Amino acid sequence: MSDLSKLASALVPRKAVQKMAPYSPPTGGRAGKLRLDFNENTVGCSPRVIEFLREKLTAEALPVYPEYVEAMAELSAFFGVSRDELLMSNGTDEAIQVLVNTFVEEGDEVLLLHPSYAMYRFYAELAGGEVRELSYRAADLSFPLEELIATIHPKTKAILVANPNNPTGTGIDLDAVRKILEAAPHAAVLIDEAYFEFCGVTALGLIREYPNLFVSRTFSKVYGMAAMRCGCLFSCVDNVRWMHKAQSPYSVNMLAALAARAAVRDGEYVASYVKEVLAAREIACSGLTRLGIRYYPSHANFVLFHAGERAISIRDALREKGVLIRDRSYEIAGCVRVTIGTPAQIERFLVELERLWKA
Amino acid sequence: MSDLSKLASALVPRKAVQKMAPYSPPTGGRAGKLRLDFNENTVGCSPRVIEFLREKLTAEALPVYPEYVEAMAELSAFFGVSRDELLMSNGTDEAIQVLVNTFVEEGDEVLLLHPSYAMYRFYAELAGGEVRELSYRAADLSFPLEELIATIHPKTKAILVANPNNPTGTGIDLDAVRKILEAAPHAAVLIDEAYFEFCGVTALGLIREYPNLFVSRTFSKVYGMAAMRCGCLFSCVDNVRWMHKAQSPYSVNMLAALAARAAVRDGEYVASYVKEVLAAREIACSGLTRLGIRYYPSHANFVLFHAGERAISIRDALREKGVLIRDRSYEIAGCVRVTIGTPAQIERFLVELERLWKA
Repeated sequence: MSDLSKLASALVPRKAVQKMAPYSPPTGGRAGKLRLDFNENTVGCSPRVIEFLREKLTAEALPVYPEYVEAMAELSAFFGVSRDELLMSNGTDEAIQVLVNTFVEEGDEVLLLHPSYAMYRFYAELAGGEVRELSYRAADLSFPLEELIATIHPKTKAILVANPNNPTGTGIDLDAVRKILEAAPHAAVLIDEAYFEFCGVTALGLIREYPNLFVSRTFSKVYGMAAMRCGCLFSCVDNVRWMHKAQSPYSVNMLAALAARAAVRDGEYVASYVKEVLAAREIACSGLTRLGIRYYPSHANFVLFHAGERAISIRDALREKGVLIRDRSYEIAGCVRVTIGTPAQIERFLVELERLWKA
Repeated sequence: MSDLSKLASALVPRKAVQKMAPYSPPTGGRAGKLRLDFNENTVGCSPRVIEFLREKLTAEALPVYPEYVEAMAELSAFFGVSRDELLMSNGTDEAIQVLVNTFVEEGDEVLLLHPSYAMYRFYAELAGGEVRELSYRAADLSFPLEELIATIHPKTKAILVANPNNPTGTGIDLDAVRKILEAAPHAAVLIDEAYFEFCGVTALGLIREYPNLFVSRTFSKVYGMAAMRCGCLFSCVDNVRWMHKAQSPYSVNMLAALAARAAVRDGEYVASYVKEVLAAREIACSGLTRLGIRYYPSHANFVLFHAGERAISIRDALREKGVLIRDRSYEIAGCVRVTIGTPAQIERFLVELERLWKA
């Protein structure tokens, strides 16, 4: 043991890992509360998803490594792409990782917006990329299109954009997307459309026109399947072929692939949930206005609003009342984010918020 | 469009991705056949896993991002480690990737054995590591311990070993594991124990003694849950903390985490399946001997044997008869690998093999 004691020093991780900020979203203790904190579907997935999973869930099915042939056929048909323009992923997180691992060499520049989804920076840094960040415009949190285009240079190897963006709720139109794509033909441009269904703007129709375009979608938001980890990444055939090389052949759980198939068959369920959310978002915005609270108009199923110095204390007090919202004041001074659920859920949130606000 | 046409050139992937060999295991068209090709459990997972999943599978559960508190508690108790010595992963594949991404810088040397599990090379290359490979000894496919130790040098940053090894079926004892750990105190040493339950040798008890040791286990083999993608990676607290930084917070599907909890509660099921497999392995080896076929004694739920020049044609002919085995002749001349299932399944395999062999 005396020999060993001198060996017993910890391993040194990669510099990139040492430098990264830990990312630990507050996912604990949410059971039984009104979950307006993670932009999830607040009601449930389609009952047809559960039916299909129950039908397929047998002791004989689970020992088998996943096969994706049927899921690829159904999902590509649903999204209107060919099978070789689609890559299924273990949530959007894996889509981002595979894109970055395929195209970003150590030291390459990755352009991000701030604030945005935390995993862009996470995977860019993990890959050893040099992250350069532009801020959403302070006045209205709109997308800094001209500034972004002026920032692109030959070393920019990837540009990762959420549209609509989280947590700002602001978005860009297809003209702006085209301008980015045309200004950066040498860079992989990801348009992450996790909240597409709430706004209807999509770049998916452009993947055959722009070989530098990548579009992602997820089953974690409107579809109500965040627990299942299933996303889709779209690009031209060549890019998808390269990315397949950089992806584990079994990263998507078989039940997730089954759930996705059932989910896209129930378009009515999604349309009906979107309708509820859009109505509830109106109610939320009216309520905030009534209370004199400043908010940012949103294209997604959440609204960012100014709680000022009380941001954290209001979040904590709402939690005491069983309503979870998300602090974003570390990114935008005084701001918190509320996920929009059903009208009844938002009424409840507003009642609790009003009590606290006037206290 | 004329402007665009000159932009419309494909993106160039990273050099590491360009160089990688594609990995496309033959997972298609397996339904309805006797699956002796992927070292899966050939019967089914524990019925208690299915019961528990059916109980938890509700439309209200799926919209929620996974929480792992209960799974971490039950799994760490089962494996006899503390929670901060355990990292749950999306199959062993993600465990390998997270380990490599945490500790292997671009250009670092990664030592592998050949032939072994394909994903070691896959993730080492994807991370830009320099792979150096040592062959299992030609005579008996035993582990080249002395050669490995002589090969370790200060630039060796990771050593990835399957024990028992796939596809050779050969293994090393804890003395050999200790020798590797002590010869490479600066390197991350992974002992991948995917087939542990069939041999009983484990390095898990050494993680507090060697800060360079990593041990992985999987629910994809004996537990019969390959479809679910769930693995566990063990190391000292410091290493696990670093690796958490390099892992997506939601990479394990919630149903996989639930399934793992139910699986470890049914030790009897696993013990009973192991007993069947060990009996069937005896039958397989006797059968091969009777046919005059040379094979390698195995510590796992598969046996590698010499089919000679007919390796591929025998595999194909067995497939015609509804029995799937795996060609390995591209790694070890003339060899194919058969997964050991139940005695009845192996009897069936032997009947079909005998007909072909004597034809």
